Amino acid sequence: MPGSVGTSAGLLLRLGQALFSISSLFFMSVGVEFYSYTAFCFLVTIMGLLIPWSATLAMFDMYSICVGSNIRLPGVMMVILLGDLSLSILSLAAACASAAVVDLLVHSRGGTYCPPKYCGRYQLSAAMAFLSWVLTASSSLLNLWLMASR
Amino acid sequence: MPGSVGTSAGLLLRLGQALFSISSLFFMSVGVEFYSYTAFCFLVTIMGLLIPWSATLAMFDMYSICVGSNIRLPGVMMVILLGDLSLSILSLAAACASAAVVDLLVHSRGGTYCPPKYCGRYQLSAAMAFLSWVLTASSSLLNLWLMASR
Repeated sequence: MPGSVGTSAGLLLRLGQALFSISSLFFMSVGVEFYSYTAFCFLVTIMGLLIPWSATLAMFDMYSICVGSNIRLPGVMMVILLGDLSLSILSLAAACASAAVVDLLVHSRGGTYCPPKYCGRYQLSAAMAFLSWVLTASSSLLNLWLMASR
Repeated sequence: MPGSVGTSAGLLLRLGQALFSISSLFFMSVGVEFYSYTAFCFLVTIMGLLIPWSATLAMFDMYSICVGSNIRLPGVMMVILLGDLSLSILSLAAACASAAVVDLLVHSRGGTYCPPKYCGRYQLSAAMAFLSWVLTASSSLLNLWLMASR
């Protein structure tokens, strides 16, 4: 099935996840005061978990494509599926929480909570986290389908 | 498979979803100014979608248990699966957004944004939405597994 572990579509999904997580982390953490908001700290934590996970699985896929060995053992697939499912849930939660906080900061009555430069970066970071969630969720659903259809 | 469409565990899951969505909607909308925050309006909208969906499927399950007919036609299952998946994603998003906004309101520096009586109800509503998401997500994963394993 295209998109599951060990295929080139799966490798593309993993690379996209890593790319969007890195850009989300970059927009949120470089030069911005993210640590005064719980939701932004949560986003940084989850993106910090998602980057090594996606990078590891991308290497896994690359090895499987180059060497041509079958790495789809049931135990390995179960670990990958559980990790993907939990990380996709957590990244959706982090993206939504950040988006809600950014929206509240932008539309707050006082208007002093969010300098325009900061707010734009927060919004970009939340958007990147959403894109990263879309790819993680597709990976996990494809792997779940593959495991269930055996 | 227990928990999927047309089983008594599935009926229990649907009743739990309806119950938690109704209580989330109740805590958020009765006597509280929810409409000044985007995240809370989103939560009310999604809970308003989730309640009729769960109630309809609960009646569906009840009919299937009482009459004993097989309602698991591929087309019907696909509609139920797509509805469950999208509603579980939306309810997680609404719950996380509301929780983030409540957290920001409680810990805001001014301290005047959230009278204690309101904040407690917002928190309860977000918690109920989380519980409703847990049940919806289990329903959708069980149905996905059932469809894929055919």
